[in-house]
Amino acid sequence: MNHVVLTGDRPTGPLHLGHYFGSLANRVELQHVHPMFVLVADYQVITDRDLPGEIQRNTTELLLDYLAIGLDPAKVTIFQHSAIPELNQLLLPFLSLVSTAELQRNPTVKDEILHSSQSAVSGLMLTYPVHQAADILFCKGTLVPVGKDQLPHVEVTRLVARRFNERYGRVFPVPEAMMGAQPQLRGLDGGKMSKSRGNSIPLKATADETAALIRRAVTDADRRITFDEEARPGVAGLLTLAGLCLGRPPYEIAEKIGDGGAARLKAVTTDAVNDFLRPIRARRAELDEADARAVLRAGNGRARERAVRTLDEVRRAMGF
Amino acid sequence: MNHVVLTGDRPTGPLHLGHYFGSLANRVELQHVHPMFVLVADYQVITDRDLPGEIQRNTTELLLDYLAIGLDPAKVTIFQHSAIPELNQLLLPFLSLVSTAELQRNPTVKDEILHSSQSAVSGLMLTYPVHQAADILFCKGTLVPVGKDQLPHVEVTRLVARRFNERYGRVFPVPEAMMGAQPQLRGLDGGKMSKSRGNSIPLKATADETAALIRRAVTDADRRITFDEEARPGVAGLLTLAGLCLGRPPYEIAEKIGDGGAARLKAVTTDAVNDFLRPIRARRAELDEADARAVLRAGNGRARERAVRTLDEVRRAMGF
Repeated sequence: MNHVVLTGDRPTGPLHLGHYFGSLANRVELQHVHPMFVLVADYQVITDRDLPGEIQRNTTELLLDYLAIGLDPAKVTIFQHSAIPELNQLLLPFLSLVSTAELQRNPTVKDEILHSSQSAVSGLMLTYPVHQAADILFCKGTLVPVGKDQLPHVEVTRLVARRFNERYGRVFPVPEAMMGAQPQLRGLDGGKMSKSRGNSIPLKATADETAALIRRAVTDADRRITFDEEARPGVAGLLTLAGLCLGRPPYEIAEKIGDGGAARLKAVTTDAVNDFLRPIRARRAELDEADARAVLRAGNGRARERAVRTLDEVRRAMGF
Repeated sequence: MNHVVLTGDRPTGPLHLGHYFGSLANRVELQHVHPMFVLVADYQVITDRDLPGEIQRNTTELLLDYLAIGLDPAKVTIFQHSAIPELNQLLLPFLSLVSTAELQRNPTVKDEILHSSQSAVSGLMLTYPVHQAADILFCKGTLVPVGKDQLPHVEVTRLVARRFNERYGRVFPVPEAMMGAQPQLRGLDGGKMSKSRGNSIPLKATADETAALIRRAVTDADRRITFDEEARPGVAGLLTLAGLCLGRPPYEIAEKIGDGGAARLKAVTTDAVNDFLRPIRARRAELDEADARAVLRAGNGRARERAVRTLDEVRRAMGF
C-alpha cells in the first residue's frame, strides 16, 4: 500500500532524546519510504497555557531540531496549523459528524482535562481530536505513528473519515495508527522522561551540558551494574539510554561495566550519548533561524496547496 | 460612532414576509448608513439536517431574495462561510477563550438541542456561538441586528472579544446587539410564522400563489373584524400583515373592513401583500442565477480580503 504519513509535535520547547527514540528516529526512517507531512501544532499550544510570545521561538527551535536529526525538507512537508486556513476549515464539517457526547467521552481529552493547569477546560481542548482529524485527513494521511495515549484520537479520525464517506461519498481514506515498538525512555531521575520534569537530555544540549545532566542522574550505591527495571529504575534508565545510543541491548552494557559502579555507568552513558549527538549537533551548527524559517515557509506552501485541493473536494462532495 | 454591521441567514429555503418585516427591511435601511456584511451561513445548515445537495440551490435563491428586496451589492458585502477559510480559522483561537461549561450553558444552544431532529447533538452545534463570534469579529463588526433568541450568542461574541483583547492586546471591538422593534409576524395559521410550518408567504410567491395562501389562512366566523391578538390570533395576524404592507396600524385596517368578515379581510390583505411584493417580484424577474453567483463571488472576494487582514492581526497579536 502507498501510505501517506502524518505526524507532528506541539511547539512547547526543545526536543529531547526521549522524543528521538520514541518517535523521531522512526520518522527519519519513514521519510525514505512514504510521503510524510510533519505538523507543528502551534494552535494546540494555546490549549494548555498562555505562552503566546514563545510560540514563534519554540517553532523555530523545533524546526532546527527536525533538520538536525536528518528530516529532509525535500522529502518531508513540515508545516504549521496557523498557516493553513483550509485545513482548519475542515474542523467545521467534521464537527458536524461527531456528537458532543463522543467528544466528552474521549479518554485522552478526559485525562488532559484532569491534568490541565487551566481553571476551566476550553472549547479548543474539547474539540482537539476533531482538529486532529483535520490534520490527518487534509493530506489524506493513511498512517499515523502514535504513542498509546494518542490511540483514541486516531479512532476519532477513523470515525470522521467513515462517517464523511458514508454521508457524502468516498473522499477520505480511513487511516491506521502505527504504534512504536520502542519502550518509553526513562528520565534521568528514574521517572517518566518529560520536558517539564527537567529529567531529559535535549537534542541541542552541548557535550558539557550532557555530561552535567548525566552526572546528576539518580542511581544507587551498588557497585555491580545490572539491568533491573523494577528494582533499579535509575540504573536501568541509563543503561537503556546508552544501549539505544550504541545500538546494543542494555544488559550487554551492564555486563561490560561489571563492578564499575555508578561513576563508570555515567561515564559510559555520557560518551555514548555525546557520540550519538555529535553528528546531530554538527548539522545543527550549520543551520540558523533563517534556514528554519525558509523550510517552514516552503512546507507551509506545499501543505496549503494540498489543503486547498482537499477542501475543494470536500465542498464539492457536500454540495456547496 | 462608525458602525460595521454583521447580519445573515442560513440558506435553508426561500425567505418570507416574516423575515422581511423582522429583519430584512432593517438591513435595506441600514445599508445606506453603515458598511454591512451579510453572511450566508452555509456551514451552519449541516448543523440541523442532511440536505447537502440543496445547499447550493438554497444559497442561490437566498441571493436572489436579497437582491430582489433591494440589498445593493455595491454597498453590502454578501458572502458565505464555506468560501472564507481565514474566517473559519478564527474558530480555533476563539475556542481557546471559551470553556466547555460556557458552551453548554448557552440557552439558545440548549434550546436548539432540545428541538433538534438529530439523534445526537453535534460538536458543530455546540460550538456554533463561537463560530458566530468569528463571523462577527472577522469584519470587526460592531452592530449585530438580532432577534431575542440570538442575544445569548452575541454575549458569547462580546466575551470572546473582551478575553482576546485582555490576553493579547486590543484587536477587536466589543460589538453591540441591535434588537428589532418589529413584533414577530404571525403565520397564516395564527401560530408562529416559520418556513417549516408552511404558514408563511415567500417573497418569491406569485400573486396567485399569494392569494391562494391567504385564502387558506385560519380566521373565524365573526363578521365584525377587530384587532385582538389574544382572542383572534388568525384575524390579528392578517391585520398585522396587511398593516405592515400598507404602512398603517392594524386596528385602522380593521375599522376600514368593519363588518366585511373574513372574506373581505382576506381580499384586503391579498391586495396589500401583492402591491407590496410587486416591485420585489419585478426586480427578481430581471435577475437570474448567474447574477446571484456573480454577486456572491464578488462578496466572497471582499470578505476574504477582510478575513486575511484580521487573521494576520490575530496571528501577530498571539505571537505566531
